[in-house]
Amino acid sequence: MDLGLLRSLAQPATTKIILCSLDGLGGLPRPGTGKSELETAALPILHALASRSACGLLRHVGPGITPGSGPGHLGLFGYDPLQHPVGRGVLEALGIDFHLKPGDVAARGNFCTVDGEGRITDRRAGRISTDLCVKLCERLRTITVDGAEIVIEPVKEHRFVLVLRGDGLSGSVSETDPQALGVPPLPARALAPAAERTAAAVSQFVERARQLLRDSTPANMVLLRGFDRQPDIPLFPETFRLRAAAVAAYPMYRGLARLVGMEVLDTGPTFTDEIATLKRHWDSFDFFFLHYKDTDKAGEDGDFDAKVAALERFDARLPDVLALRPDVLAVSGDHSTPSILAAHGWQPVPALVASAYCGADHVSRFTERDCASGALGLFPAQELMPILMANALRFAKYGA
Amino acid sequence: MDLGLLRSLAQPATTKIILCSLDGLGGLPRPGTGKSELETAALPILHALASRSACGLLRHVGPGITPGSGPGHLGLFGYDPLQHPVGRGVLEALGIDFHLKPGDVAARGNFCTVDGEGRITDRRAGRISTDLCVKLCERLRTITVDGAEIVIEPVKEHRFVLVLRGDGLSGSVSETDPQALGVPPLPARALAPAAERTAAAVSQFVERARQLLRDSTPANMVLLRGFDRQPDIPLFPETFRLRAAAVAAYPMYRGLARLVGMEVLDTGPTFTDEIATLKRHWDSFDFFFLHYKDTDKAGEDGDFDAKVAALERFDARLPDVLALRPDVLAVSGDHSTPSILAAHGWQPVPALVASAYCGADHVSRFTERDCASGALGLFPAQELMPILMANALRFAKYGA
Repeated sequence: MDLGLLRSLAQPATTKIILCSLDGLGGLPRPGTGKSELETAALPILHALASRSACGLLRHVGPGITPGSGPGHLGLFGYDPLQHPVGRGVLEALGIDFHLKPGDVAARGNFCTVDGEGRITDRRAGRISTDLCVKLCERLRTITVDGAEIVIEPVKEHRFVLVLRGDGLSGSVSETDPQALGVPPLPARALAPAAERTAAAVSQFVERARQLLRDSTPANMVLLRGFDRQPDIPLFPETFRLRAAAVAAYPMYRGLARLVGMEVLDTGPTFTDEIATLKRHWDSFDFFFLHYKDTDKAGEDGDFDAKVAALERFDARLPDVLALRPDVLAVSGDHSTPSILAAHGWQPVPALVASAYCGADHVSRFTERDCASGALGLFPAQELMPILMANALRFAKYGA
Repeated sequence: MDLGLLRSLAQPATTKIILCSLDGLGGLPRPGTGKSELETAALPILHALASRSACGLLRHVGPGITPGSGPGHLGLFGYDPLQHPVGRGVLEALGIDFHLKPGDVAARGNFCTVDGEGRITDRRAGRISTDLCVKLCERLRTITVDGAEIVIEPVKEHRFVLVLRGDGLSGSVSETDPQALGVPPLPARALAPAAERTAAAVSQFVERARQLLRDSTPANMVLLRGFDRQPDIPLFPETFRLRAAAVAAYPMYRGLARLVGMEVLDTGPTFTDEIATLKRHWDSFDFFFLHYKDTDKAGEDGDFDAKVAALERFDARLPDVLALRPDVLAVSGDHSTPSILAAHGWQPVPALVASAYCGADHVSRFTERDCASGALGLFPAQELMPILMANALRFAKYGA
């Protein structure tokens, strides 16, 4: 849907919406049992909720396309991810409360380990401590390059953000991370003529970092990826006329929410902390994006049982969310992370929408297989927000 | 689908199609029973028909978008309602057999009641009688304004149509109806530079109407909305190569059918009259749009039992329609009007297509819940007409 149309229909109301994103929610049957993580877990609350909800399957980008966390969440927020590409560097920067200026180019950095011949032996430098990362970032901050100011911010463990600030910079620079071991980092190359100067500045930065880090094994080199400028994106609170808050412990999701203009609430690291935060701010917002990370982590680790346990932990906390009596509650995810794949997958993600006006279908279990025959059908993720808005009676009628 | 493509595939045939639109057909479960109007009603004929039909759910504008009657029916007629917006004034004018000329600007008028300080106390002037409306319209016809001829036509009760006729008029004029009580009517403003003169003419009209009606309480003022020029829309009979007739008692739906070029048949006010009209003209047309209003009226009133009864009355008359042995019969609606919402809703609308070639599915009850798992799936309303054309063997093959 055209965001301008949605904006013209959006109207103020007193209803409240919670959009619960279980990261990497969707799964696949385990060969031994023929049952997916959702089908294996004991989920009494979710299944009961599905019974009184409209259910379906969300597809975030397109058929067979595996979404990253950025496109996955942009879809949930009502944006067509293909229309609004966001680089990893931008997300990473937003996620540490770094306020990008217009024209800044950001990249995600990793400290990594290279051997005597410069070949990568560990892309994450053994996941060095965040303390060490902070100290190494201090060292990188001494670097100067031609044509751009260098800003460095530590993130967590081996991760940092590089921001190039200056006039006429471009995000069209190739990644230096080959995403492979036994090979040296790639040179930064301009992917468009306008990016020549930016690529040269990046190359200078990388070369000086190599010299500065030479003695600091295991973190003796850097890898850069996801060069991008902050996109010009219609703001979520203005598009949907909602006071919107994000409750997310992880930087990436906080950054994404901030990118679309949500207020990102301070919260502790656990889902219990997140729910406490949700409760504390309940009266001050109309819309809450509530993020649950554990499902994705287990799926990425290929740990089927851990993902089942993560789903069960979510189910156990769901009554606290329901107790707030939101007018509209949606439960879905930003992409699948099937444990048997041990990575993000392209498989559509189960979704449920519960409200007084959601209608009903025959679905009584919140699983991939059951949601496939739900009333919402298989639908693009960006259609979820309009459906939530409608269920919250926040859209005017279209046409006489 | 591109209408030009459909037109290039359409071919003559002797088959006959009936498209039955139950206005506001879709509903929602009543909290006490968990069953919708369709699930509560006794509908032996419809359910039997569904059993031998392909079923699905129609969506008229987009996810979460509540269609007005205009966009709802344009969708049923095969048009993308977002591509072909139609103002309320135009529909209202067409609905009273008023033949708009190119360039005319039409608006929907209400007689209303204002207090001594000009604030609206009743937007419908207590729904005055149609007789009084006719007399008051006579009075308004004496008004002259600069730069436009004024044409006034009474509609029903408190409603009338205002048409401005002249060169260079524009429909980009803001509504004077604030859709609220306790405030005065809004001034008519130009929404585009080209509409300045039209807005001035409307303002003159409103001011003179105020003076003329001063003594005629409760109908002592007018409200205007839905200013629009007749849209340039590809004609239905030419697009689908069908001799198309509309059987509809209500002005709005007659107007919409005329807008797309259907022949609007004279008919009496009841559905029994409509069916008699259908029978009388059966040999003269290939396509009949048959409109049933009662379902929407009951839904808008929030009267669940009345909507159930309206569905049962339709079911009882359906054998008369089947007796004509149409080659293709579709039953659906222009939008949902769930009784628990007491208004149009965004919920997809059940649809069935019966023909010798429709195929079959597992659906044996014509309900929202059952149609959700039908063979037609959840689909845009404008895709219904191509499906009906195909089932009537009226489309040539695409490509060699």
